[in-house]
Amino acid sequence: MYVLRLGHRPERDKRVTTHVGLVARSFGAHGFILGDIKDDSVIESLRKVCLRWGGRNFFLASGVNSLLFIKSWKERGGIVVHLTMYGLHIDDVIDNLRKVENDMLVVVGAGKVPRIYYELADYNVAIGHQPHSEVSALAIFLDRLYGGAELRFIYPDAKLCIEPSERGKKVVKCEPREE
Amino acid sequence: MYVLRLGHRPERDKRVTTHVGLVARSFGAHGFILGDIKDDSVIESLRKVCLRWGGRNFFLASGVNSLLFIKSWKERGGIVVHLTMYGLHIDDVIDNLRKVENDMLVVVGAGKVPRIYYELADYNVAIGHQPHSEVSALAIFLDRLYGGAELRFIYPDAKLCIEPSERGKKVVKCEPREE
Repeated sequence: MYVLRLGHRPERDKRVTTHVGLVARSFGAHGFILGDIKDDSVIESLRKVCLRWGGRNFFLASGVNSLLFIKSWKERGGIVVHLTMYGLHIDDVIDNLRKVENDMLVVVGAGKVPRIYYELADYNVAIGHQPHSEVSALAIFLDRLYGGAELRFIYPDAKLCIEPSERGKKVVKCEPREE
Repeated sequence: MYVLRLGHRPERDKRVTTHVGLVARSFGAHGFILGDIKDDSVIESLRKVCLRWGGRNFFLASGVNSLLFIKSWKERGGIVVHLTMYGLHIDDVIDNLRKVENDMLVVVGAGKVPRIYYELADYNVAIGHQPHSEVSALAIFLDRLYGGAELRFIYPDAKLCIEPSERGKKVVKCEPREE
């Protein structure tokens, strides 16, 4: 499962795009692609997180043509899931989607998403029908997809690990783990 | 339950703050407070969403002193929950937190959060121990708190409602509902 973020409005949505990428990484995606806009600073800040918290094989790219990427994903037999408040309620489709998790591209928009993306998507899925955020939509979607197990996930190559703490911040070197 | 966002870095985090506010509104909070920074544009854009999608009683404020607000919340017998990747895993505390939902202030940070907030919080809660986003952290926290029911919620005074759709965008006038 990979996440494609449709091109952001430069500057205005940069931080939001970075947050979408961080959710993709920490909630179990194999990679994050920023469509249409080349933005090295976003990719670089995500790569830094991978260096410290693990995920050297987490795929990162920007500037990819979103429409072509989606079309070729489908030609290769992949499934495209577009998150939008106008779509079908997640509770009504998640059981079917779990079966195709391996072939899935999750598409999240920025601003107004052109109609073509609704048409190309195999599933338009709503994380509720209220306006909120592509960051929260992606998080809830992946949480449903992985049943909450993703919140325990640690990358095998993580250098830093957290020891849960009632009051402080305890960061330790990770124990070596199997890949 | 109310949400307090610790003051953002102007411009850089404005959009992220708006997204935190949108999640608070759509995931069932009674109000959203932006601490320390007065930002009318953020509050105004949230108010516009309330006008269309409901929530005229959703409390909105900015520029409140975060530390004083938290201290007075506690003095009035309220419970303060601070979301941080360094805290206790949500799975380990959510059962206790559901019992105090009514008295709860959920605090989310921006950038580096000073130690005093960790000390004042009754609970420091981690939505997993990986870096992601205050937007996704708040969404997953409220989703756990309300058990997914929040994704069906429609405000009684909503003017617009969505009819779930496989491909298109269907927005209709809401049916009158009981408050």
